[in-house]
Amino acid sequence: MTVPTVTLSALPGLPPVEAGDDLPAMLARSLLAADIGPRDRDVLVIAQKIVSKAEGRLVDLATVVPSARARELAAVSGKEPRLVELILSESGTILRNVPGIMIVVHRLGLVMANAGIDQSNIRHPEGRELALLLPEDPDGSALRLKQALDERFGVDIGVVIADSFGRAWRHGVTGVAIGAAGLPSLVVRTGEADLFGRELRGTEIGFADEIAAAASLVMGQADEGLPAVLVRGLAWDRDAMPAAALIRPKERDLFR
Amino acid sequence: MTVPTVTLSALPGLPPVEAGDDLPAMLARSLLAADIGPRDRDVLVIAQKIVSKAEGRLVDLATVVPSARARELAAVSGKEPRLVELILSESGTILRNVPGIMIVVHRLGLVMANAGIDQSNIRHPEGRELALLLPEDPDGSALRLKQALDERFGVDIGVVIADSFGRAWRHGVTGVAIGAAGLPSLVVRTGEADLFGRELRGTEIGFADEIAAAASLVMGQADEGLPAVLVRGLAWDRDAMPAAALIRPKERDLFR
Repeated sequence: MTVPTVTLSALPGLPPVEAGDDLPAMLARSLLAADIGPRDRDVLVIAQKIVSKAEGRLVDLATVVPSARARELAAVSGKEPRLVELILSESGTILRNVPGIMIVVHRLGLVMANAGIDQSNIRHPEGRELALLLPEDPDGSALRLKQALDERFGVDIGVVIADSFGRAWRHGVTGVAIGAAGLPSLVVRTGEADLFGRELRGTEIGFADEIAAAASLVMGQADEGLPAVLVRGLAWDRDAMPAAALIRPKERDLFR
Repeated sequence: MTVPTVTLSALPGLPPVEAGDDLPAMLARSLLAADIGPRDRDVLVIAQKIVSKAEGRLVDLATVVPSARARELAAVSGKEPRLVELILSESGTILRNVPGIMIVVHRLGLVMANAGIDQSNIRHPEGRELALLLPEDPDGSALRLKQALDERFGVDIGVVIADSFGRAWRHGVTGVAIGAAGLPSLVVRTGEADLFGRELRGTEIGFADEIAAAASLVMGQADEGLPAVLVRGLAWDRDAMPAAALIRPKERDLFR
């Protein structure tokens, strides 16, 4: 019996990514080494971290001078004042600043902890403290990666740039899409029929977020070093829509 | 080159589920028909809907008498007053009641729209209006399903009961785990080392939620009729933890 199947395959052998690296070329070599494609409609999920690194988004905290506001907020949260200054420079509104937790609206519109600035899985050379910012424009990064891989392999793939977010009301982080190209990040099914012909009301699916969460199962979160996952077997019949479409604007938000 | 791979396979040929059906027997027949297992450490993800149906959680709205409070709230939300009465009977706190949207804390602790009560993909016989409630105890349901399938096949599997939730700050629903057995719903990695030996701070992963989101990619949301998905290739080294562990209690919540 034929069984609808989706496979999630980690790309092997990706070397550490440094600023200025040709990420599409590195991904292409890994795809060839694994002999798994890509084919049309495959989706390549890439950890935000290696996209940021390739784009040179590492900041040396020694170059950051904390403002008075950063020092004030740091006194409450207990975070490094220079890290708080970096968070402020990447953020619009600060939603919460309590011990251990700083939740902001990132300049991209994403509601997230610490403006997505990360210090884990980064080489900190000679005692320097580095911090990694999100890509300048993750949807743009996804599109450039898609175009480079499409051209190299003569295919039409989807690309998702994944990060791990905490959630309101629930423990634990899950993978979410902060950038996407070549697939509908949000699938609007309102007006379609259910199994018994009844109209589905208000059903919108966070398709790219579910893809990012699925890939996160393979990537792991600590020392696995598997920052790219090829997803095969997905189907969609909507136009491509960037991950920015997943962001609920403030005026439609009930919880801030 | 060996590539770490996770596969998501929809169980084929599941007939519509009715109250009192032997769901483990139906799932077992479908697994045998598909010839895909189960094996140790496979995770079977099952849509909340068929678990609720098998457990007889369908309510005929004709049997519901709306209270004055339900009629008041219904006047604001625009929902059916009898449906609102049902939502109230399943809920603790009402967090939001605005036109079209009612967000509650379900008696299980879950923060969700409409107390998880659903009217889609349900047969509504002879013009009757039915509504489907969540299982009484989804973690208990997951454990009973696991035990029945473990015994039948001589294996040790995980079971996740999945529902679709909206999220704060983001558009679109994604699959989440409302029940789980045989796997760690939440994986706490605080204290472990990252790639460069730096301690991961406060990393907790919503493992069962990511599994539910992944399976949702295969299940679809409308008329696909694929309410069970076998996930193969996951690894874990923590003790089993029910899905209730994913619920952030009110006193640790910054957003209600």
